[in-house]
Amino acid sequence: MTTTLPLVPKGKDAQDAVCCAPIARQPLGESEAAELAALLKAVADPVRLRLLSMIGSHAGGEACVCDLTDAFDLTAPTISHHLKVLRTAGLIGSERRGTWVYYWVIPAQVARLGALFTPLATG
Amino acid sequence: MTTTLPLVPKGKDAQDAVCCAPIARQPLGESEAAELAALLKAVADPVRLRLLSMIGSHAGGEACVCDLTDAFDLTAPTISHHLKVLRTAGLIGSERRGTWVYYWVIPAQVARLGALFTPLATG
Repeated sequence: MTTTLPLVPKGKDAQDAVCCAPIARQPLGESEAAELAALLKAVADPVRLRLLSMIGSHAGGEACVCDLTDAFDLTAPTISHHLKVLRTAGLIGSERRGTWVYYWVIPAQVARLGALFTPLATG
Repeated sequence: MTTTLPLVPKGKDAQDAVCCAPIARQPLGESEAAELAALLKAVADPVRLRLLSMIGSHAGGEACVCDLTDAFDLTAPTISHHLKVLRTAGLIGSERRGTWVYYWVIPAQVARLGALFTPLATG
């Protein structure tokens, strides 16, 4: 699979583009805004952003909690709290296998965040 | 200009796709995570999400503060506080003209949020 970076347009094109990003296309309703703000709060934390990126980029697409704790100067319960916030927001899934709990990223929920702020493709 | 919604893939394709979203491609460093978390905190609020969407979708691409207050059951100073948070995060610009302050969305900063969570286009 080949990939290309999303185009970030400039000047007049940028103005056209932002018109079409869902966040700037039409006013958000109260309930939709509340739901999206809760999802954004789940990722609006440096430790949780790092955990999400570590889980997503881990070999095999999943990470054991034992792979995650060493990178942080935080206690295991604190790491667990942050993982629970990500899981409650539907951004990661988890499963216990033997001694350890394993985590993986839920792509659709991550993509939902992206789609909110991404100018729609022009065609 | 015609538009198409970003494709949110499922199953095996979804796993391929999330591998390529910047948030899940490689572990974020501490300073990058701190900076992105601050930007996300600016939008992780229902009032600020609604303000951003109202400004972006307003006719002419900019909105007077007088266009924004009626939709909320909030005082003018509270609305001003939320607008200041968005402006400080670089998500909107503003300019006083006569009696009113006008606001517009900064597309590149909005697109930066989107790019973090968006699977790279496949080609």
